[in-house]
Amino acid sequence: MSDATPVVGIIMGSESDMPAMEPCMAQLDAMGVPYEVKVASAHRKPAVVHEWAETAVERGIKVIIAAAGKAAHLGGVVAAFTPLPVIAVPMKTSDLGGLDSLLSMVQMPSGVPVACVAINGAKNAAILAVQMMGTNDAAMLQKVADLKADMAR
Amino acid sequence: MSDATPVVGIIMGSESDMPAMEPCMAQLDAMGVPYEVKVASAHRKPAVVHEWAETAVERGIKVIIAAAGKAAHLGGVVAAFTPLPVIAVPMKTSDLGGLDSLLSMVQMPSGVPVACVAINGAKNAAILAVQMMGTNDAAMLQKVADLKADMAR
Amino acid sequence: MSDATPVVGIIMGSESDMPAMEPCMAQLDAMGVPYEVKVASAHRKPAVVHEWAETAVERGIKVIIAAAGKAAHLGGVVAAFTPLPVIAVPMKTSDLGGLDSLLSMVQMPSGVPVACVAINGAKNAAILAVQMMGTNDAAMLQKVADLKADMAR
Amino acid sequence: MSDATPVVGIIMGSESDMPAMEPCMAQLDAMGVPYEVKVASAHRKPAVVHEWAETAVERGIKVIIAAAGKAAHLGGVVAAFTPLPVIAVPMKTSDLGGLDSLLSMVQMPSGVPVACVAINGAKNAAILAVQMMGTNDAAMLQKVADLKADMAR
Amino acid sequence: MSDATPVVGIIMGSESDMPAMEPCMAQLDAMGVPYEVKVASAHRKPAVVHEWAETAVERGIKVIIAAAGKAAHLGGVVAAFTPLPVIAVPMKTSDLGGLDSLLSMVQMPSGVPVACVAINGAKNAAILAVQMMGTNDAAMLQKVADLKADMAR
Amino acid sequence: MSDATPVVGIIMGSESDMPAMEPCMAQLDAMGVPYEVKVASAHRKPAVVHEWAETAVERGIKVIIAAAGKAAHLGGVVAAFTPLPVIAVPMKTSDLGGLDSLLSMVQMPSGVPVACVAINGAKNAAILAVQMMGTNDAAMLQKVADLKADMAR
Amino acid sequence: MSDATPVVGIIMGSESDMPAMEPCMAQLDAMGVPYEVKVASAHRKPAVVHEWAETAVERGIKVIIAAAGKAAHLGGVVAAFTPLPVIAVPMKTSDLGGLDSLLSMVQMPSGVPVACVAINGAKNAAILAVQMMGTNDAAMLQKVADLKADMAR
Amino acid sequence: MSDATPVVGIIMGSESDMPAMEPCMAQLDAMGVPYEVKVASAHRKPAVVHEWAETAVERGIKVIIAAAGKAAHLGGVVAAFTPLPVIAVPMKTSDLGGLDSLLSMVQMPSGVPVACVAINGAKNAAILAVQMMGTNDAAMLQKVADLKADMAR
Repeated sequence: MSDATPVVGIIMGSESDMPAMEPCMAQLDAMGVPYEVKVASAHRKPAVVHEWAETAVERGIKVIIAAAGKAAHLGGVVAAFTPLPVIAVPMKTSDLGGLDSLLSMVQMPSGVPVACVAINGAKNAAILAVQMMGTNDAAMLQKVADLKADMAR
Repeated sequence: MSDATPVVGIIMGSESDMPAMEPCMAQLDAMGVPYEVKVASAHRKPAVVHEWAETAVERGIKVIIAAAGKAAHLGGVVAAFTPLPVIAVPMKTSDLGGLDSLLSMVQMPSGVPVACVAINGAKNAAILAVQMMGTNDAAMLQKVADLKADMAR
Repeated sequence: MSDATPVVGIIMGSESDMPAMEPCMAQLDAMGVPYEVKVASAHRKPAVVHEWAETAVERGIKVIIAAAGKAAHLGGVVAAFTPLPVIAVPMKTSDLGGLDSLLSMVQMPSGVPVACVAINGAKNAAILAVQMMGTNDAAMLQKVADLKADMAR
Repeated sequence: MSDATPVVGIIMGSESDMPAMEPCMAQLDAMGVPYEVKVASAHRKPAVVHEWAETAVERGIKVIIAAAGKAAHLGGVVAAFTPLPVIAVPMKTSDLGGLDSLLSMVQMPSGVPVACVAINGAKNAAILAVQMMGTNDAAMLQKVADLKADMAR
Repeated sequence: MSDATPVVGIIMGSESDMPAMEPCMAQLDAMGVPYEVKVASAHRKPAVVHEWAETAVERGIKVIIAAAGKAAHLGGVVAAFTPLPVIAVPMKTSDLGGLDSLLSMVQMPSGVPVACVAINGAKNAAILAVQMMGTNDAAMLQKVADLKADMAR
Repeated sequence: MSDATPVVGIIMGSESDMPAMEPCMAQLDAMGVPYEVKVASAHRKPAVVHEWAETAVERGIKVIIAAAGKAAHLGGVVAAFTPLPVIAVPMKTSDLGGLDSLLSMVQMPSGVPVACVAINGAKNAAILAVQMMGTNDAAMLQKVADLKADMAR
Repeated sequence: MSDATPVVGIIMGSESDMPAMEPCMAQLDAMGVPYEVKVASAHRKPAVVHEWAETAVERGIKVIIAAAGKAAHLGGVVAAFTPLPVIAVPMKTSDLGGLDSLLSMVQMPSGVPVACVAINGAKNAAILAVQMMGTNDAAMLQKVADLKADMAR
Repeated sequence: MSDATPVVGIIMGSESDMPAMEPCMAQLDAMGVPYEVKVASAHRKPAVVHEWAETAVERGIKVIIAAAGKAAHLGGVVAAFTPLPVIAVPMKTSDLGGLDSLLSMVQMPSGVPVACVAINGAKNAAILAVQMMGTNDAAMLQKVADLKADMAR
């Protein structure tokens, strides 16, 4: 089914990030946006991550969401291999609370941005992905407008 | 001229943010993306900011870039008034180095995301804006691909 | 009953802030100061917040207490819409301990102050509100003097 | 001249804080609010500080502004000796940027609040003082409303 | 009994600091050093604290240990009222982990030092007190030497 | 000349890191250790970095030194592509002082370590590289022993 | 048995560090690398630590792993007494999360490096030790290559 | 001359710490307290430091002042080798402002305290040393009382 082709690609560094990322998938489901999910560490499986990132455009992906913790390079590594926008979700950590993940993701050097959301901001990553796709897709933009109207009530 | 209609709306909290934001405008110029620039504080001129944000869609804006420092609420305030994606650029500060601006922008509560880039990450904000518009616009996506190819050489 | 007209307006960004703010209401009760309580997010329900802030003076409110967490803009947003003094209570957060809330509230730009108390400083916000009202109200000032005398015993 | 009786008492820990506090005095001058200025360290001249704080009410002071840096106890020490509201201005420091001053002032224990503004937030301290006095003084409140109207233009 | 006259004065800001300070008392007991304990907040009971500090020399106290949390002024306030050396023990806090207590205690301005130990460093405060008294008391110095020899075994 | 074959590979993210890294090259020169230098960003030229890292063993490299700033992924990215030990040098940054670079480098996830030295610790990176090679090379170990003897004099 | 002679020397500041360090020993076991373990505080048993560090080379040790928390000097103290490379593992702390341990270990002054891994990065310390020994030992290097191949699957 | 025998031993990690420590020597001079000064790094010249610390008692030293920056172990290393009280002065650093020096010095583990003063708190270290000696020396205590009286004027 053509509208079931994933348009958001979600990647996370470890299976242990899955519970924190569930609100992301739930929000995309609620907004009717198809997505794919990949678990692969930028450090332990770099070839897998590169292949996944480099082929994202041809798979039909329009926005990537990357979640990782500690020295969280996943967002930046993916961004290096695709022209697509990459949303980074820094994971909360047990020692520094996620300050390490946040700085590792948001402080990207000039030329290769990522779009960073809050620590464990999984739901917001989903909404932001839809906003991005709404820049040239009225139906997507309407989904965000509807969500805002719902919240305002 | 239709292609001169701004598609990126840049707003900053103070005239003093202008020098730090110049790489943003330069990058958009270099990529041939028309934009408009507004200076208005979320705290000192809230009505101006709200009006500007609420009418952005009808003015043809597709992505908003908001730059502010210290307790940097501008990104969040704009995001509250538009379904468009908002890129936040935390300004470096003279006392805490911009950690205050960064946390005030990136740690948005659930439901209303902003896409935060690095402290003073003005150029990356421009590239990210084009990436967002590229989600459904092949010409825009190609601009990013060209930029990446240039950097890789 | 005229002396039951609220003179302190308490607003918080989320129902989840209520337990942390209960010592504020308890302290106002103990000092015999009438108050009203509103729950509304600056980002999710901006129109509600603005209306509430803009009409505070005419409702008879003399001091506002605003509690919020993370990128805590509520204090600043309210302050933008009223000449009344705004006391900000930064909420403790589960990842950064409230440092994000604190910096988002206290580092207000020039022209629009908020009066920030400690992280989760709900009881102190109540006392500070009474101190503010005591600047031209001997009965209010006496309440604070009595409290201090009690503590000193 | 009765309206020349100071209603705001400004105290700072060191002569070296004077330049950073000048915008406070300038703002009070601009708003036509009489004030007095004292330089005395809570640690080096505790008796002077106590005497000054304890007699503030009888001198006609309605709001106190205390500026200090590093382990900045001045706000808390003054607050311990008066029922008046105390606005604390944490001074920027050359090593930690003022994070030390900020935490030393804002994290007051339960029972004795101070109203903390931004690091070096001298001008805002003045505005906040007028807002406090405006809680029961329509002319003072009008000064703030006028200032807000000016900024909004 | 003359050797039962307290030579170390322990003061803490709140009853809630008592459990964290118990290793201090236990260590002094173990080293046979008599002490007195006072609970009084610098902010809530300033007169009590000043009286206690000002009369410490005449009571026979040789070293003071002050424990407090958050905007921890107790060490500095006591130091302002006595020529005796003051050891500060910053208490761990539930939001910022004690960074606030630490900076509030250790960053004392020029002229009035405190001797700061680690966050919750109650046992070390006791040992340091004995070291201070050992500067001109061979028996005290021997207690420390014995402790070091014990640890080295 | 066989002893001129580089055994240390130095890579840095940007030409602008060169001045801060000069003490590294100077120290290797002083210890008579041949090295090669590469400038390539992990984000802008990922293919170049991967190729360089993957072929390091066959080029005869024994230790890699990677210097980068901000969201400093270079060390981790290189480590993902080689079994060689990777020494990371976090670069000082103009806003957060290098705390961002440090956390991005040192907080590596389980399975892929880097050996992190101090912010701008270029000289120490060189010494550490020689120490690593000294684990099975008496001449290399002697260079370190000589250096230590020199410093102790 | 010659291959049972320890080549990695593990030292930790306290018995309480043992649980956090178990993944280090487990990883060395899994890679077939013999090691010795010592518990000794740099501050409480300095002579023991010095003796252990100074004789490490003659005992056949090739790499040292030092774990400690808070003001974690153990890595630096050991490094002062041996030409061998020292890997430092900063222990998580209950108040500051390990930021204190990390800065105390990684910010070594010029001339005496340690190789710092992540907070509680015990497993990575083991892998890094093997990488160091692999610089001139093909069998050791192969162990790391095998581990990387395993992770990539 | 007997009263010229140094009673305070000052040690610093590097010649570059000398300017920051000059107020310490000046204050001791002003109070008429003889001292000796040593420059020796705990990491580069450990044997020199140990010898100096171990023989301090027999040289007549009563208090030690140790100044160092970054991973500042000097205070702790000296404290491990002497029963004398050790005052630690954390040096301001160019990247982290001295937060690294501070945490490395103040967070000492149980059993071996140092008495930490503020970042670059050289003058206060001198006063604290005299306070310590005043615990059993009325002339020394009087010097501190005189200083306090001077400051209070």
